[in-house]
Amino acid sequence: MTERQPTASGVIAAAKRIAGQVTVTPLLPFEFRGTRLWVKAECLQPVGSFKLRGATNRLLQLNEAERARGVVAFSSGNHAQGVALAAKRLGVAATIVMPADAPAVKMDATRGHGADVVLYDRATESREEIGRRLAGERGATLVPSFDDVDVIEGQGTVGVEIAAQLGRQPPLVVVPCGGGGLSAGIALALPESRVLVAEPEGWDDMARSLAGGSIVPVAEPAPPTRCDALQTKLVSPLTFGALQAAGAEGVAVSEAEVGAAVRYAFSTLHLVAEPGGAAGLAALLAGKAGDVPEDSVIVLSGGNIDPVLFAQILAE
Amino acid sequence: MTERQPTASGVIAAAKRIAGQVTVTPLLPFEFRGTRLWVKAECLQPVGSFKLRGATNRLLQLNEAERARGVVAFSSGNHAQGVALAAKRLGVAATIVMPADAPAVKMDATRGHGADVVLYDRATESREEIGRRLAGERGATLVPSFDDVDVIEGQGTVGVEIAAQLGRQPPLVVVPCGGGGLSAGIALALPESRVLVAEPEGWDDMARSLAGGSIVPVAEPAPPTRCDALQTKLVSPLTFGALQAAGAEGVAVSEAEVGAAVRYAFSTLHLVAEPGGAAGLAALLAGKAGDVPEDSVIVLSGGNIDPVLFAQILAE
Repeated sequence: MTERQPTASGVIAAAKRIAGQVTVTPLLPFEFRGTRLWVKAECLQPVGSFKLRGATNRLLQLNEAERARGVVAFSSGNHAQGVALAAKRLGVAATIVMPADAPAVKMDATRGHGADVVLYDRATESREEIGRRLAGERGATLVPSFDDVDVIEGQGTVGVEIAAQLGRQPPLVVVPCGGGGLSAGIALALPESRVLVAEPEGWDDMARSLAGGSIVPVAEPAPPTRCDALQTKLVSPLTFGALQAAGAEGVAVSEAEVGAAVRYAFSTLHLVAEPGGAAGLAALLAGKAGDVPEDSVIVLSGGNIDPVLFAQILAE
Repeated sequence: MTERQPTASGVIAAAKRIAGQVTVTPLLPFEFRGTRLWVKAECLQPVGSFKLRGATNRLLQLNEAERARGVVAFSSGNHAQGVALAAKRLGVAATIVMPADAPAVKMDATRGHGADVVLYDRATESREEIGRRLAGERGATLVPSFDDVDVIEGQGTVGVEIAAQLGRQPPLVVVPCGGGGLSAGIALALPESRVLVAEPEGWDDMARSLAGGSIVPVAEPAPPTRCDALQTKLVSPLTFGALQAAGAEGVAVSEAEVGAAVRYAFSTLHLVAEPGGAAGLAALLAGKAGDVPEDSVIVLSGGNIDPVLFAQILAE
C-alpha cells in the first residue's frame, strides 16, 4: 500500500476531482442558547451520508484494468451505499460485505444501487478476511471505509465546502467519529478550526487514543449502541495521525444524549439523522463541546435509520 | 387595501428585500423512475416552512408608526411561526390567533419566537373576526396568510431561488396549495414553467376553481385531513388570478398518498416533511403529475409535524 499520508492539498485535489459527482450539501443556520451555529447536513447526500465522497475519490483514481475487475468493500451500511453508488455511476462492479444484522434500510439501499451484497455473522466471522478473500479471488480492488489516503481526503471535502460556505474556517467543528476518516479529512481541510470528535460511550477509542497519545482499541466487551455507523473497534494510524497533528480532542456521548439529538434534528432542523450521524449534535446539546463560539459547525454525518427505530426514539 | 396585483417584478424586488433575512434553502437532486428531479426543501427554513418569506417581505414594508403598533395574524401554525420570527427579528410585537386544535409543536414554536398566542375554537368562532377585532383594538397591522400582494410576492422568492439554483426555469414545478400564496408567487417567478398545485382530496378548491375558470369554495362537509397547513376553504382572487393567468392546473391527493410521500421524504431524502408540505411529492409519487421531464422541481413546503403523528405515518 501507499506510504503517502493524507494532506490538506490532497483534500483540495479531491474536492476538484469529485466536483459534480457529489452533492454540495447545505450549511444550515440554527440558534442554540442564543448563539448562531451551523449544521453541515451530510444526511442530504444521495446515499444519506458523506461516504459517497471518499468512495468517489477512490474509484476515480482506478485505472482501466482496475475498473474492469471491480471493487469490494466491507461496511455496516453507509460506506456500502457510498461505494455502491459511486461504482454504479462509474460503471464498475461492486461487491459489498455487510453484517447480517445491519439495518435493513441500508442493505436494501445498497442492493438498490446495483451492488452484490454478501452477508456475514458479526459474532463469528471477520469481515476483513471475507473482504480480502473476495478481492483476492476476483482481482478486485478493496475500498477501505477509512484506512485509506484517498478515502480520507475524499471525506475531507466536507471541510472544504464548510470553509467556502461560511467564508472562513469555523472556530469549532464537531464531527461524529467511527474510524475517523471524516474527522481526519476535515481536520486537514480546516487547520485553523478546533476539531472535536464525538463517539458513543464505550466506543470512544479515538478520544482515548488522542488523550493518551497513542492508538488504543475499544475495550471489550463493548456496550450495545444504536450508533451502528460508529462501531469501529480500532482506528487507523492515518486517521489518528491527522487528528493528533491537528490537536483534536474527543468526547463520548450516551445513548440518551444521542436520542435527544435525533429528536432535536427532527423537530428543530427538520432533518432525518441516524444515531451515529447525530453524535456531534448530541455532544453540543449535552454541553460536552466546551466553548462553542458563534459560527461553530456541527457535522450531521448520516440519516439512514430504520423507521421503527426512529419512531422509538421519537417516543422516548 | 391595495388594488395592486402581484407581479413578477414584485417577486424579484421581494427577493432583494428579504435577502439575508431568510435561508436560501437547498435544491436537492433525487432520482425518480430513472429521471433526475429536484426537491426544493423549504422545510429547512428556520421556522420549518416557506412562510418566513412572505411575512418578512410584508413586515419590511411597514413604516415606523406601523411597526410600533405591532402585527396580528391568524394561522393554524406555519404562517404563525413565520410572522412571529419575522416580527421578533425586526423588533415588532406580534399577536397570533391560532385554532385550539393546532399541532402543539406549532403553538410551542410560535410562542418560542416571542409571539402572543390567542386561541379560538375552529368549530364555533371565526379567526378572521377575532384577528380583525384585535387589529382594530390595538391599531395593529393584519398580516394575511395568502390574500396579500406582499405576502404572495414574498413566497414567490422560492421560485427565484429555484431558477438561480437550476440555472433555468424548470419544465414543471409541483407545489402544495392551501390558499395559493406560495404557488401563485412561484407561478409569477417562473413564467416558463408548467405549474401544478397539489391539494388534499375534498380540499381541492383551487384545482376545481382553475378547471372551472372561477373561484369555488371547498364543498361542505370537508373531509378530515392530516394536511392541516392546507385547510383553506376559499382561495383569493389574487392567488387564483395569478395561477389562472399562468395556466396552472391542480390535482388532489389522498391521505394515503400523502403518507407515502412523508415516508419517502424520510427514507430517501432524509427530510422531515409535514403532510401538507408533502402534497406535491405525493402527486409525483402517485403518478398524478402527468409528464415529468428531467429537472422538474417538487416543492416540499413545510416540516412542522407532531412526533406522534410522524411515528404513526412511518408505521403505516
